[in-house]
Amino acid sequence: MTKKLLTIDFEPLGRRARVALGTTLLEAARQAGVGLSAICGGAGTCGDCRVRVVAGEVSSPTEAEAEATSAGFRLACQTHVLGDVRVDVPPESISALQRVQIEGRERPVELDPAVRGFDVTLEPASLGDLRADAARLKDALSQQYDVPVGRFDPAVLRRAPSLLRQDGWRARIAIKGQDAVAILPTDASLLGLAVDIGTTKLAAYLVDLESGETLASTGAMNPQIAYGEDVMARITYAMETAERAGELQRVLIEGLNALIGSLCAQTGCDSATVVEAVLVGNTCMHHLALGLPVPSLGLAPYVPVLSDAYDLKARDLGLDLAPGADAHFLPNIAGFVGADHVAMVLATDIYRADQITIGLDIGTNTEIVLAARDRLLSCSCASGPAFEGAHIRDGMRAAPGAIERVRLTDDRVEYQTIDGAPPVGICGSGILDGVAEMLRIGVLRASGAIVAGSHPRVRGSGRTAEFLLVPAGERSAPRDVAITRKDINEIQLAKAAIRAGIEVLLKEAELEAEQVERVVVAGAFGTYMDVDSAVAIGMFPPLPRGRFVQVGNAAGMGAKMALVSRRCRKVAAEIARRVAYVELTTHRRFVDFYTAALQLPEEHGAMGCSLSQNDA
Amino acid sequence: MTKKLLTIDFEPLGRRARVALGTTLLEAARQAGVGLSAICGGAGTCGDCRVRVVAGEVSSPTEAEAEATSAGFRLACQTHVLGDVRVDVPPESISALQRVQIEGRERPVELDPAVRGFDVTLEPASLGDLRADAARLKDALSQQYDVPVGRFDPAVLRRAPSLLRQDGWRARIAIKGQDAVAILPTDASLLGLAVDIGTTKLAAYLVDLESGETLASTGAMNPQIAYGEDVMARITYAMETAERAGELQRVLIEGLNALIGSLCAQTGCDSATVVEAVLVGNTCMHHLALGLPVPSLGLAPYVPVLSDAYDLKARDLGLDLAPGADAHFLPNIAGFVGADHVAMVLATDIYRADQITIGLDIGTNTEIVLAARDRLLSCSCASGPAFEGAHIRDGMRAAPGAIERVRLTDDRVEYQTIDGAPPVGICGSGILDGVAEMLRIGVLRASGAIVAGSHPRVRGSGRTAEFLLVPAGERSAPRDVAITRKDINEIQLAKAAIRAGIEVLLKEAELEAEQVERVVVAGAFGTYMDVDSAVAIGMFPPLPRGRFVQVGNAAGMGAKMALVSRRCRKVAAEIARRVAYVELTTHRRFVDFYTAALQLPEEHGAMGCSLSQNDA
Repeated sequence: MTKKLLTIDFEPLGRRARVALGTTLLEAARQAGVGLSAICGGAGTCGDCRVRVVAGEVSSPTEAEAEATSAGFRLACQTHVLGDVRVDVPPESISALQRVQIEGRERPVELDPAVRGFDVTLEPASLGDLRADAARLKDALSQQYDVPVGRFDPAVLRRAPSLLRQDGWRARIAIKGQDAVAILPTDASLLGLAVDIGTTKLAAYLVDLESGETLASTGAMNPQIAYGEDVMARITYAMETAERAGELQRVLIEGLNALIGSLCAQTGCDSATVVEAVLVGNTCMHHLALGLPVPSLGLAPYVPVLSDAYDLKARDLGLDLAPGADAHFLPNIAGFVGADHVAMVLATDIYRADQITIGLDIGTNTEIVLAARDRLLSCSCASGPAFEGAHIRDGMRAAPGAIERVRLTDDRVEYQTIDGAPPVGICGSGILDGVAEMLRIGVLRASGAIVAGSHPRVRGSGRTAEFLLVPAGERSAPRDVAITRKDINEIQLAKAAIRAGIEVLLKEAELEAEQVERVVVAGAFGTYMDVDSAVAIGMFPPLPRGRFVQVGNAAGMGAKMALVSRRCRKVAAEIARRVAYVELTTHRRFVDFYTAALQLPEEHGAMGCSLSQNDA
Repeated sequence: MTKKLLTIDFEPLGRRARVALGTTLLEAARQAGVGLSAICGGAGTCGDCRVRVVAGEVSSPTEAEAEATSAGFRLACQTHVLGDVRVDVPPESISALQRVQIEGRERPVELDPAVRGFDVTLEPASLGDLRADAARLKDALSQQYDVPVGRFDPAVLRRAPSLLRQDGWRARIAIKGQDAVAILPTDASLLGLAVDIGTTKLAAYLVDLESGETLASTGAMNPQIAYGEDVMARITYAMETAERAGELQRVLIEGLNALIGSLCAQTGCDSATVVEAVLVGNTCMHHLALGLPVPSLGLAPYVPVLSDAYDLKARDLGLDLAPGADAHFLPNIAGFVGADHVAMVLATDIYRADQITIGLDIGTNTEIVLAARDRLLSCSCASGPAFEGAHIRDGMRAAPGAIERVRLTDDRVEYQTIDGAPPVGICGSGILDGVAEMLRIGVLRASGAIVAGSHPRVRGSGRTAEFLLVPAGERSAPRDVAITRKDINEIQLAKAAIRAGIEVLLKEAELEAEQVERVVVAGAFGTYMDVDSAVAIGMFPPLPRGRFVQVGNAAGMGAKMALVSRRCRKVAAEIARRVAYVELTTHRRFVDFYTAALQLPEEHGAMGCSLSQNDA
């Protein structure tokens, strides 16, 4: 006889779990794919997992809950289900965004896609009307819509005869400018693809070009990772032989085609109805995707081969879209500030900010933009892959079991893992939290040294010191997870690069940090991370929390905007033209700023980097 | 000890043979690849092979020579070499044109190619000048030549960085319109390719776009022949599955790539410097080359998919040219009157003829145009492959050993084979001559029946009657070569189709045949054939010989003209627009004309087809 399962509904998300009697609401939420925050791991101490039980029978509140919750709320980790239950989940209890960071803040854009569909009905061919199919289509588009077609893609010509004759001389023609790029049955939707090619991650969105709706989105690792984890490693690899450069392009296109396949499978759409793609990426990814040589990106003066926006046939790249579809690449700004940055500046509206605004897209390379008094300045910092969990001894990517949040008390360690899985390592936001917390409770010195004996979890001393986050066995951890002195050093290098970039831009604009009114943080890590921790270690200037906005994958959002709006493409070109690129490596103050920023702030709220103030 | 060889030089051709003492000059000419006419096969009777011995010792003139030649000339077949000899070959002694008919009458065209080369010198990239390579090229072209570049082909962008840096920031850019299609070293020539895709034969020309000079030309069989010898057979094959259509395209492109390889090998050029191609062919060849579906060409109302001139990237067809090169297809007129006809009309100037002119391109399909009083009328006849040697029992293509000329007397047969090789079969011009000669000497009736006993070489009677041209063993013939009753019937069908086409066009223009002032005969067969024979069998109207012009591969010439002249492309578009297509199969008089034309003219000079006169 099977155990009777209870039905737990999570509103307003519309998610459902079927669980056994006595299961906690937290566990049920995990089964339902509802990402409840629970940094204490379900101990009832953090108070993050507040929910409201709307209907159904549950266990009585515990004493811990009484302290942690206000009227009507329960802690999901402490509440056991006794029957079918309906639960209301308040937004603040949702654990950030999905872990494959593909979503971002959508901004409504007026629909004005480059490719538009026109349904035409033709006169059938006859002995009295011997016009070629192409001429017939051209005449119909001109007569029925006043749309002049200058050119039919070969793919349209190849498909037209059978489609027209099967479909009663009717068809939907996808037109871009004066080019007919696809011919489809009259009931077909016109779809578009937006792609953000990150050094580490790929994100792809399938969009209905006629409604602007995102039908599906998905993400994956960039398969080029196998050839080097950062841009310089890829350039070095690609420079060795033309075959190797071709290999980097090939695996990338394969990865993108896998995403296209997945998006089509999710939605039941046919990739032959995807009539345009917009791609963004940093300049190196942009070049590798286009099959452009990258050696010039690896050597001073680091000039790109191509900076303007660029269209080419998706088939020339091997992308599995409609055979006549274009791939549109947004413009690059410089060798290390690419189209993804342009897309971010577009999506976040920084380009027309009234307030003094800093925008950051934190990744293996971090691009920073400063908007102030009609100027747009940008730079690129080699922040390295530490925030992706690389170069960290127990580091890992943001995957189930990764420690993503850490809080320390004088004798205890609280942490949260992705999906609540047994802890197996630590990801970017976890290490950031860990360093910030170690600093806060006095385990770390400004130099990054671990103070021996400062906490029960400190092991060893000097260069071999480490801080044990999870002893093997705790919450089924397969092994110890710790933060080492060397890990802290990696974080110092990364945060110093970012902070020095910010300071150089402020210096160029003759601004003080405190004048910055808004800091827009984009990217996967930038969205999951705790801004307070970033401020605590001096990665960001010590501004009030309210000035920071975390916007998710703004580059991907910008790509989507450019997909559905020709005006946004114009704005992107304008952004690329307006942004003044500041080369850090040759900047007279960069080394000073960087050196200062390597230190950790001595007290919470202070700055590791204090030069910008002394220097005014 | 080896025999001492003598050196025989043929001027002004610059050809040389090394032969043994006593060899005839005719044999030496064959070895040297000099195609001397010699219809009597070297018997000293036809007097065709006249040459002048400029220097060196030869045998004394024979009696036969004394009759056949005027002062200073010798018959090559009767002249034996006794030492090193230098020979002058007068033009009239050259046996027509080369057998792979790729040459035609060149008409000078003002050079105005669609693709032009510009040598640019760039400012090197530096920390003070971070422009992308593409922007740098664009600026240089704008500043140095006032040439605005709207787009760089990906192939240009991929090649530019290394070429510029290796070549001192100098390069030659090939520009078409506003597109940069190729980047080459500054010393590279810009080449173009002109191609005539015949149902049976391919012809290709490599042209220097800057001088207009034809660097090399070559021909080959169309490899699609393996899939059906005429257009309808190919359409039927292609209609069965998409794979089969793809196969026809693939073998054709492979064939063209082989020609490109051969042209480059002949000239030492690199195919990457071939920056544009112009292709012509009948509508079916045009569609198969472009990968367009052909079913609509095989069923009434026979409409093409595409009629306008069309550009696409040669790489989209798989052609081995510069990776950014375009393939330009001239426009089609109708389902059975294609771009090759447009090219022929262009190359022969028929489109602006002051005289009433008929133009024919004789092939498996024969296209005919009539220019009269500012009208251009055209039609297409299914003349079949008999003139290619197919459907003829001892027929063969125009290859060495094919009988290409025939003359009959009451008791004798004279013939000439290609390259003077032992007779192995009979090609189109040979069978045409044979039928005309049989008719002239009374061996044939108007019905095409062979009159038994009318000549010593007539064998059998009725349906099985045949005329023996060559008994096995004569001139090392491996077997008998004869013309059968059925062969004659094939020729009747073919000539009737052509003549009926001519008559329908004349009827449409309300003209009599004798009003035609010029008949331009194009194509390989049309150039080799004896016009008198064609008139004798009634294929052509009985006009004075002086009104006929044989122009070689005019379609190929037209393709070359369009390659080097944008104005010629405009004219081609104008021709395609102006030509009124006349559908023969539904024409009210076609059957009458065709039936009448099936007869052979009863007396030399009369017409098989006499309806046009009665009918005025």
